[in-house]
Amino acid sequence: MARQDRAIRTRRSILEAAARVFGERGYASATVEQILNRAGVTRGALYFHFSSKEEVALGVLEAQMPIDRLPERSSKLQKLVDHGMVMAYRLQHDPLVQAGVSLALDQGARELDRNSAFRAWSDQLEQILTEARGQGELLPHIDVTDTAELLTGAFSGVQAMSQASCNRADLGHRVSVLLRHVLPSISTPAMLAALDLSPERGERVFQEYRESSPEAATTVTRS
Amino acid sequence: MARQDRAIRTRRSILEAAARVFGERGYASATVEQILNRAGVTRGALYFHFSSKEEVALGVLEAQMPIDRLPERSSKLQKLVDHGMVMAYRLQHDPLVQAGVSLALDQGARELDRNSAFRAWSDQLEQILTEARGQGELLPHIDVTDTAELLTGAFSGVQAMSQASCNRADLGHRVSVLLRHVLPSISTPAMLAALDLSPERGERVFQEYRESSPEAATTVTRS
Repeated sequence: MARQDRAIRTRRSILEAAARVFGERGYASATVEQILNRAGVTRGALYFHFSSKEEVALGVLEAQMPIDRLPERSSKLQKLVDHGMVMAYRLQHDPLVQAGVSLALDQGARELDRNSAFRAWSDQLEQILTEARGQGELLPHIDVTDTAELLTGAFSGVQAMSQASCNRADLGHRVSVLLRHVLPSISTPAMLAALDLSPERGERVFQEYRESSPEAATTVTRS
Repeated sequence: MARQDRAIRTRRSILEAAARVFGERGYASATVEQILNRAGVTRGALYFHFSSKEEVALGVLEAQMPIDRLPERSSKLQKLVDHGMVMAYRLQHDPLVQAGVSLALDQGARELDRNSAFRAWSDQLEQILTEARGQGELLPHIDVTDTAELLTGAFSGVQAMSQASCNRADLGHRVSVLLRHVLPSISTPAMLAALDLSPERGERVFQEYRESSPEAATTVTRS
């Protein structure tokens, strides 16, 4: 294994250990020592990657950010759909993504900017909606900021409800329901008819991303 | 003050004190003593109303349940809208409703059934949607369970995002955006044109409810 690969894996194993420790104890009462013990790495290895517990937590929060290089689509509204569906799939399968979302909801983590994930998501979706507008895919009255923030907030609540009721087993269905309720209000009818909003789309697009993208190996999902 | 009024006020002041204590310390580390001190009531008064800390917490959770007797509307979809708008208004103004929502998101409160608020809301909305269907207000393909659960989850996330970004100052606007994005996908066009989805509706309907309902005095909102 090349040195760089090993460093990437060590970083990932520290983040996964931290995710479990934060999940069990809450951010406020977790310590660097507990993370070291759980990860089975030396203090030097941890401080090579992270300067503090807060920085480890920022790494965990980072895991839930939108993926930069999802496959391009000629329809930008399909790209919008793909972002939501892939996030649903990752939330079901990647413990680090799950931990990032829990940490963003942990009211004891006061020194963290827990708002950053909301902002990153609504900025990303607003950019895609603006591209969709440029291509004539949107109905004329749409305010892209309102729509982007609505989708971000609604997704967050839908995943929380899915977690509470069945540990996210039905999240693909629920996100598909969200999109089927919102897209008809923002998309031109011709574009709407061409969109794939099926619950299985997240897994297919995520596999496509993993096969095409060199950095996808570091955002592996366990199956 | 009649004895019954006094009992209602004592119960309310215990719940408000508990709401603040839970908010500051989290449910898990809060104690009955802290609630007594904050409320300025005797132990006997507290145990007259509640048998345990858990039962106090259930009382706080209760505050976020849908109001049973909102004013009736000939359009059931308008009643659906009114429930969302009134909840937005109460969340902005009633500390007990705010505390109920925080407690439902407190991952340290393991012994509480934090799912009960999600269920109460989706059951209430499903019943209203079923009435709307009976009156021919819904598009034929709508699955009322899916729509009710979507609205419940989406509202929950939208209010969390509004709280994180501006302490819920823009919640009326955000809930109006949610409804304007979802209603066109479920309502017949003629009914849609007759709905009032404006952000100020919550306050108007809540005042109407307070003036008409005898029990509204116990769910006062501070202005």
